[in-house]
Amino acid sequence: MKDAIAALRALEHKNYAYTYAQSLITYDAETGAPADSAAGRAEAVEVLSRAQFELLTAPSVDKLLDEADAAADSEQIHAEVRELRRMLSRIRPIPADEYAAFERLTQEAVAVWAKAKKASDFSVFAPYLEKMVAGRRRQAEQIAPGKDPYETLLDQYEPGLTIEKCDAFFNTVRAAIVPLLEAVKTRGSAIRTDFLNQDWPIEAQRTLSQKVMKLWGIDPDRCTLAESEHPFTDGFNTHDVRITTHYMANDVLSNLYSVAHEGGHALYELHVDPELDYTVLAGGASMGLHESQSRLFENMVGRSRGCIRLLWPTVHTLFGSQLSGVTEEEFYCAANRAEPGLIRTEADELTYCLHIMVRYELEKALLHGELTVADLPAAWNAKYKEYLGLDVPDDAHGVLQDIHWAWGNFGYFPSYALGSAYAAQAMADLAKTIDFDAMYAAGDLAPLRDALTERLWHYGNLKPTAWLVESLCGGPFDPKYYVSYLTKKYTELYNL
Amino acid sequence: MKDAIAALRALEHKNYAYTYAQSLITYDAETGAPADSAAGRAEAVEVLSRAQFELLTAPSVDKLLDEADAAADSEQIHAEVRELRRMLSRIRPIPADEYAAFERLTQEAVAVWAKAKKASDFSVFAPYLEKMVAGRRRQAEQIAPGKDPYETLLDQYEPGLTIEKCDAFFNTVRAAIVPLLEAVKTRGSAIRTDFLNQDWPIEAQRTLSQKVMKLWGIDPDRCTLAESEHPFTDGFNTHDVRITTHYMANDVLSNLYSVAHEGGHALYELHVDPELDYTVLAGGASMGLHESQSRLFENMVGRSRGCIRLLWPTVHTLFGSQLSGVTEEEFYCAANRAEPGLIRTEADELTYCLHIMVRYELEKALLHGELTVADLPAAWNAKYKEYLGLDVPDDAHGVLQDIHWAWGNFGYFPSYALGSAYAAQAMADLAKTIDFDAMYAAGDLAPLRDALTERLWHYGNLKPTAWLVESLCGGPFDPKYYVSYLTKKYTELYNL
Repeated sequence: MKDAIAALRALEHKNYAYTYAQSLITYDAETGAPADSAAGRAEAVEVLSRAQFELLTAPSVDKLLDEADAAADSEQIHAEVRELRRMLSRIRPIPADEYAAFERLTQEAVAVWAKAKKASDFSVFAPYLEKMVAGRRRQAEQIAPGKDPYETLLDQYEPGLTIEKCDAFFNTVRAAIVPLLEAVKTRGSAIRTDFLNQDWPIEAQRTLSQKVMKLWGIDPDRCTLAESEHPFTDGFNTHDVRITTHYMANDVLSNLYSVAHEGGHALYELHVDPELDYTVLAGGASMGLHESQSRLFENMVGRSRGCIRLLWPTVHTLFGSQLSGVTEEEFYCAANRAEPGLIRTEADELTYCLHIMVRYELEKALLHGELTVADLPAAWNAKYKEYLGLDVPDDAHGVLQDIHWAWGNFGYFPSYALGSAYAAQAMADLAKTIDFDAMYAAGDLAPLRDALTERLWHYGNLKPTAWLVESLCGGPFDPKYYVSYLTKKYTELYNL
Repeated sequence: MKDAIAALRALEHKNYAYTYAQSLITYDAETGAPADSAAGRAEAVEVLSRAQFELLTAPSVDKLLDEADAAADSEQIHAEVRELRRMLSRIRPIPADEYAAFERLTQEAVAVWAKAKKASDFSVFAPYLEKMVAGRRRQAEQIAPGKDPYETLLDQYEPGLTIEKCDAFFNTVRAAIVPLLEAVKTRGSAIRTDFLNQDWPIEAQRTLSQKVMKLWGIDPDRCTLAESEHPFTDGFNTHDVRITTHYMANDVLSNLYSVAHEGGHALYELHVDPELDYTVLAGGASMGLHESQSRLFENMVGRSRGCIRLLWPTVHTLFGSQLSGVTEEEFYCAANRAEPGLIRTEADELTYCLHIMVRYELEKALLHGELTVADLPAAWNAKYKEYLGLDVPDDAHGVLQDIHWAWGNFGYFPSYALGSAYAAQAMADLAKTIDFDAMYAAGDLAPLRDALTERLWHYGNLKPTAWLVESLCGGPFDPKYYVSYLTKKYTELYNL
């Protein structure tokens, strides 16, 4: 029966190779590929995704999984079988042609999205988005006939997540955020922001990125930083992680907190047990858990007083003239200010979930057939008016801003909000054993990295998501920690 | 029988996808991947190369090729069958395990080479090079039992090339170069080079790269420029070509002529008939032909008076202080000076072939089993003393300088010399119909691009190599044009 385990591993190594190739193609599309190169990429991805589909859905695989499960002598082998079965349940119901055609479509759609965003012209992207919505809806119905298609997609990114759970979670969070934001607006102390809109030389911003990566403790021999229109992270294995950022000459905080955020994803990927490399258990678990780590490093670490104290000498040296007359405390306050804006990736912690709710409600309506792609921009703009009180000037700063739908990722966005809440609860629990003031004073985040490795990172996909969430949070998930965190933070910051 | 042609094309599209994925992985390894990421890449390439091997060597392919050939209604289909048969003849004799293991090894070897070069420590790379030499030798014997293994490899890069032809060619060229170089040294006019070794800011060098690419007429939406330790070109299809360069702060000519060289490769790839995309006829033909275009644009165009006149205003604006008191004529002379050096990619046109001869003789001896890897550095250094009169200070500036052997490319180097000679003959013939002075005066290289498209570029691999060489050169290949070109050029430059 050892043969079954060897055959299982061989299957997983092959699966890894196809995933690696397609992930690299997608990464390259955003970081190095010429603008007009999408057609050749789509051609390749159609072939590779189909080969991977055929590899995994071959009739012999079921027998192999049964035999390997029976022969398994470790938790890891059982988990590999479990994860492969989960993957199979999500692809086998889809006809091979449709599966490969959809993967091809995503390559074409992303390139069209980039052009549409550049031109701020939704009409260019609309026909592709229509096909993506229809395709995902059909796939969801093939995977789980009769089930709400959006819920089927939600479950892909965060196993066990339902619309009911999302609604309850967002209601709780909204009930806290809306009055807090109102209080900030009506009676919050003024926060100085006059120095933010300046020219921040990009070479100096690049140096700051390296400083953040070093402070996070990211091994530069295993993780690189590239530039892309939309920041993201790809983890190929524990020795090959890529993060990207986007530099804006008039905004120093955008890149700073993109690197902080993607750096959190990278730490997670880099600290997975290397024994899991090339298996289906490699890499981070659910997207909610992944975003919990990125949001934790972006906000709870990156925007903390302790971290800003550590970064301040570098920031001040790099941007002496821009920060002339600005104090560390003023910089801290500006980096944490709550202010409704148009762009999710640059949103503060208080308004961030409102951006997510807009997307959650719109993508749910699209998948339910209650909203057409043609009506999407107007619906987007109306939600921004309703939730953030803002008029959206153009689609580049509105419905075209995010890459996710162009990648065919519907049901992903709630992970960001959920992850932020996991992070807040985890930090509350970690504070019982980690002296964060001492950690920042020592200038070494190792205690935090070690604790997160132990609670979450090293497991990869070995454990079920629910188990990992509880391990990370130190108890059953409860959004009250997130609400308390936001309330305390903004009450203090604005002297409410 | 139309089915056979459709099946042929389906096979070629699949083959394209595997080639694309592996080429991108190799490209990424040099441009974006973290330093310690080779293991995961090797893992993926072993799987993908084996899948491609199995795709092409499936027993059903022979029947398919016969049927497609019989059903072919165009030169292109016949050529696709011809090229697939040629590919098959070079891989089918190799056992699948050995084939995939060798592809895996190249990924590992390149990473080790990079580290060895950085540390200037040949001993780190030696065990890998030993395996590469042994592996290629075994493959050559499997492909053509009883034939000289080095000749089997030569033929892969330049179909029809033999050791006898190489020897005759190098003898002819050496007989011209050695006395010319001696004359330059003993009685050549002095060329001013005092201004070359300065600090040339890399941002300004980047701007110059863009200027060169624009002047060459390279479409930036279909070709990007990245940075790597060793400059190279990858052409995935006619809408996706990548070139790389390497910036050196104390040398403005190194990057300038790297971009000029790789830009020539890129133009070739970009101008192949798009109808050939995703077939086995896509991309440039032999490596000799490919290097003819890179060397033509690097030297016959890039180092010409006309081209330097066009670049001079940009160069002078970007490097005003470095070039203070330097005339355009002095810059031209410095860019063309003949001076034995240690590094092939920075060699002038006169000494360039001596660098190639060193490599040709050494790799031939390695493949013949007449030289061991352990003895290679000493042999390298001895040849540099003999041919270029130089003492090699360390292996980074010696045997470790080139990436080719780490990629497993033995038999490639003669293509550079042969390509230079093809280029000289082509230029002599093109001068009959193109008024080069007028072309440079107009500042648009379109007449040259159009002529090369017509003679060579648009054919891709459609025609046999010998046919393409003659089409490019305007007659049967004869190295006398190259000898005349070098003699005339250096006689004038040094007033010999």
